[in-house]
Amino acid sequence: MRNFNFFRRLSTAFNDYPSLSKIIVVSTISGGSLVAYAEAKTYSGSHGHIAHADATASDGGHALSEVVPKKKKLVLLGTGWAGMSFLKNLNNPTYEVEIVSPRNFFVFTPLLPSVTCGKVEARSIAEPIRNIIIKKNVDISFSEAECVKIDPQNKKIYCRATIDSHSKGEEEFAVDYDYLIIAVGAQVNTFNTPGVMENCHFLKEIDDAQKIRKNVIESFEKASLPSLSDEERKKILHFVIVGGGPTGVEFAAELHDFVNEDVVKLYPKVKDLVKITLLEATDHILNMFDKRITNFAENKFGRDGIDVKLGSMVTGINENEISTKARGNGKTSSTPYGMVLWSTGIGPRPLIKEFMKQIGQGNRRALATDEWLRVEGFDNIYALGDCATINQRKVMVPILKEFQETLDDICERYPQVELYLKNKQKRNIVDLVKEAKGDAAKQSMELNIEEFKAALSEVDSQMKNLPATAQVANQQGAYLAKCFNRMEECEKNPEGPPRFRGTGHHRFHPFRYRHLGQFAPLGGEQTAAELPGDWVSIGHSSQWLWYSVYASKQVSWRTRALVVSDWLRRFIFGRDTSGI
Amino acid sequence: MRNFNFFRRLSTAFNDYPSLSKIIVVSTISGGSLVAYAEAKTYSGSHGHIAHADATASDGGHALSEVVPKKKKLVLLGTGWAGMSFLKNLNNPTYEVEIVSPRNFFVFTPLLPSVTCGKVEARSIAEPIRNIIIKKNVDISFSEAECVKIDPQNKKIYCRATIDSHSKGEEEFAVDYDYLIIAVGAQVNTFNTPGVMENCHFLKEIDDAQKIRKNVIESFEKASLPSLSDEERKKILHFVIVGGGPTGVEFAAELHDFVNEDVVKLYPKVKDLVKITLLEATDHILNMFDKRITNFAENKFGRDGIDVKLGSMVTGINENEISTKARGNGKTSSTPYGMVLWSTGIGPRPLIKEFMKQIGQGNRRALATDEWLRVEGFDNIYALGDCATINQRKVMVPILKEFQETLDDICERYPQVELYLKNKQKRNIVDLVKEAKGDAAKQSMELNIEEFKAALSEVDSQMKNLPATAQVANQQGAYLAKCFNRMEECEKNPEGPPRFRGTGHHRFHPFRYRHLGQFAPLGGEQTAAELPGDWVSIGHSSQWLWYSVYASKQVSWRTRALVVSDWLRRFIFGRDTSGI
Repeated sequence: MRNFNFFRRLSTAFNDYPSLSKIIVVSTISGGSLVAYAEAKTYSGSHGHIAHADATASDGGHALSEVVPKKKKLVLLGTGWAGMSFLKNLNNPTYEVEIVSPRNFFVFTPLLPSVTCGKVEARSIAEPIRNIIIKKNVDISFSEAECVKIDPQNKKIYCRATIDSHSKGEEEFAVDYDYLIIAVGAQVNTFNTPGVMENCHFLKEIDDAQKIRKNVIESFEKASLPSLSDEERKKILHFVIVGGGPTGVEFAAELHDFVNEDVVKLYPKVKDLVKITLLEATDHILNMFDKRITNFAENKFGRDGIDVKLGSMVTGINENEISTKARGNGKTSSTPYGMVLWSTGIGPRPLIKEFMKQIGQGNRRALATDEWLRVEGFDNIYALGDCATINQRKVMVPILKEFQETLDDICERYPQVELYLKNKQKRNIVDLVKEAKGDAAKQSMELNIEEFKAALSEVDSQMKNLPATAQVANQQGAYLAKCFNRMEECEKNPEGPPRFRGTGHHRFHPFRYRHLGQFAPLGGEQTAAELPGDWVSIGHSSQWLWYSVYASKQVSWRTRALVVSDWLRRFIFGRDTSGI
Repeated sequence: MRNFNFFRRLSTAFNDYPSLSKIIVVSTISGGSLVAYAEAKTYSGSHGHIAHADATASDGGHALSEVVPKKKKLVLLGTGWAGMSFLKNLNNPTYEVEIVSPRNFFVFTPLLPSVTCGKVEARSIAEPIRNIIIKKNVDISFSEAECVKIDPQNKKIYCRATIDSHSKGEEEFAVDYDYLIIAVGAQVNTFNTPGVMENCHFLKEIDDAQKIRKNVIESFEKASLPSLSDEERKKILHFVIVGGGPTGVEFAAELHDFVNEDVVKLYPKVKDLVKITLLEATDHILNMFDKRITNFAENKFGRDGIDVKLGSMVTGINENEISTKARGNGKTSSTPYGMVLWSTGIGPRPLIKEFMKQIGQGNRRALATDEWLRVEGFDNIYALGDCATINQRKVMVPILKEFQETLDDICERYPQVELYLKNKQKRNIVDLVKEAKGDAAKQSMELNIEEFKAALSEVDSQMKNLPATAQVANQQGAYLAKCFNRMEECEKNPEGPPRFRGTGHHRFHPFRYRHLGQFAPLGGEQTAAELPGDWVSIGHSSQWLWYSVYASKQVSWRTRALVVSDWLRRFIFGRDTSGI
């Protein structure tokens, strides 16, 4: 009855002073949340701003009766890193933007491995794309649909959406565009290994991570059932990771931590039966990282009991066993497994494959663009992120070609030069120049040209495609948004380099990637960090660097607050082990 | 570069002072979390305590060589309210407990409607059952499996678990018991209405709530697609709720709030096309609540634009339309819908149906138990929660029967009484008593017996089965745990009422339910509360009472912290609208 009286009095108090309740809630929010609150509530503020800006525009330059010029239609495919970064940075209200994506949220993919074992919640790393849209002063709409065909001739895309969940009814529609930005990402690459699609888990999307999490917990529950033999338990608890890249390595580390920090307490009977195997086809794991990091990771995994099998190629997977072939001696073997994560690389999505065939890039691995991220041959189609690759032309060929073209030009404009060459039986103008300089000069000239060729060739041999990472996609999205923001300005005052052929300058500077470093979390609150300036940091210190960077890189205060509170929660309560 | 230097310095600082990092994290945790932390870390503490207790027990009474008496095996089916409450309250280490349930977590079901629209996260209201187990000083194991058959003759249950997610391999096993506690809950009741199973959503389990949430968001995304007619959009955004009980009413309120608080901002084009219909077959919604609450709710929903159709029975649901029949005039009608939630009531699960047939209760709606929660006819099988009902025997019949039996007993022991009765042509001993008292007494005696009968009959007519609520299940679980805790003690010194027949007393007091009130959240931060003492509170004040009660009733500090932080988060950032 005391409780009851307390509630009645509390209730009366709230009735008499309605604001009391809100004061109590507000006063319980910590400082960080208040900042976040302030940010979250700027929605209405920024909307007010749009209205104001519009009013100014129409009152200013034009009379009210004047027809407002039709906005250019910009269609964006995809809501991943590239698309989100483009959206966040676009602030030119002269475009009408339509986003088409089967996913109405952005995912902070570097934290996907953290979701697999419950270090971070799935929702904490997802930001609804409409939350980003309503903060912009640009006219943006979103359609949850998949683009199935691009028609560059008619400047149209065709989309498909599931409209009826019962009868699987579908809705098809076409969208016209003035500019098309393709940022649909990539899909997993199975390298046509039999059984992969049917039996493996992947880690590309948020529901992949949720499935893995459920499966990991279920594995421990199943192995804890009575009446199983130890052999059956061992099979169920054999986790295999194919691919020693950052994703595979991080998942192995997360799983190992989960077993050691939570499973030990909750599933004491089966904790010693767990086995984690990491299969890598090349000679080292993390081979895109510094050698020191690779060595440290291999040693740490060795100490942790994670079985790293290098030079081991997967030849097939059936319901119960995974078959491998050693690269060295060609020896094949099969091992029973409970769960396999396949994380070996990416390939183009069907839409991109189809589009590449259409535009004659059928033999490539991703859409080729120029340095301004335009799909080769199209002025109004851009591609960025994992679905695209910048066609870094070899330096040597175009420069020498340019040189040749200049000389050809001379011959064309001054026909007497060609006649002279024919008479003197010279091949081309280069020989003529050589001859004119005299024999002494001839040798030095030849040397210089050969040296120049060699130097260019060296530059070309060091050339690599940009890695398929969030960092690249993010920078490309921001770059392209800035281009669109300054389109009119740069049409008038081009800021780019001079054109090779033709007159004038390119509108924009070409895209340049700045590598800011990369992380490889190795478990046990240790992370390897490769930072600019050849600086490598490994251990607990870089784990804290990792926390800081990943918290600061979140796309909104909402996800930042959620991710940080997830980390705190895991620190306090451990991971959640309910099989949801 | 400034950032980079900052990180390097930060990183160095952490390297030199490793404890610094932890101090920073700890100092950012607020007071409440610290309490929670302290609680969470008592795991190891309580385990230490067990070891100590065991040591004392074996060193104390018995020599070390003495055989420890075999523990009684107690099997618990189910991890819902009744099972969880039983587990939390059981602290008698002389039992060996085995829990069998297809779900390895407990769900705080009263918050399920809050999950449907993102007010609370699914994981926040789930507590892994193993987290509860490891805090107990009782020998408890858990098997994630479904009980498919009970064999009371051989004291065995048969269970089935899915062991292989690829090939759907199954594992069957049997478990012996000394005591069996059935707390498997109930399932939805479709009343054999055609199309319900195929086309409706339900709200019994956590994945139901997750599916509804996903579906609600998807409905708004689909309705926002271009090239749909307004009629199609209206169909997609027509949400129908069948059943005006607390669940249906709360979901309608949550959905209405979601539309008005979040959809308005994020889906401005379609916000006016949303329609919410609540179909109730009887004359009022919330008809188990006080009349004042029912009226308030109906009026509020009317103002909110929720279409409450009373006396409307659903006759069938196909992929596109829901058909109803008015109870008054029998008029039938069909309406297109986008989504239907079916929340009309519960029925027994197949296991219970089968078991009832086996033990001759085939025509009942739930397992009948006596006042001590024992399944009728079995001393070692208990049933509680939604799967059971206490067979409240009618008062009048047994008391009169007892009276008659006493008199019959007199006739049997003293045959002369019967002979005397025969000679005097009296029907039975009651008439004899009446005659002996004389005519004056006769009238008063008759009156008394008739009055007594009427009073008993009045008591019987007011008798109702206990409602199928979390509150009942929770109290039953706690009651039963206390019985098991004091089993040995009460065998020696029974504390229950005297037995009607036979000698001595019952071991325990019978179960008595104390109704602590109930809530009906009506949206817009208003809740109707029915509290003990016929006290009804409606409005914002009881919403805060609701927050307080539901926070305090959480089963662990972990879920409490999560639920409260979810509420705060919604207050700050609004609901998450990503279609995860």
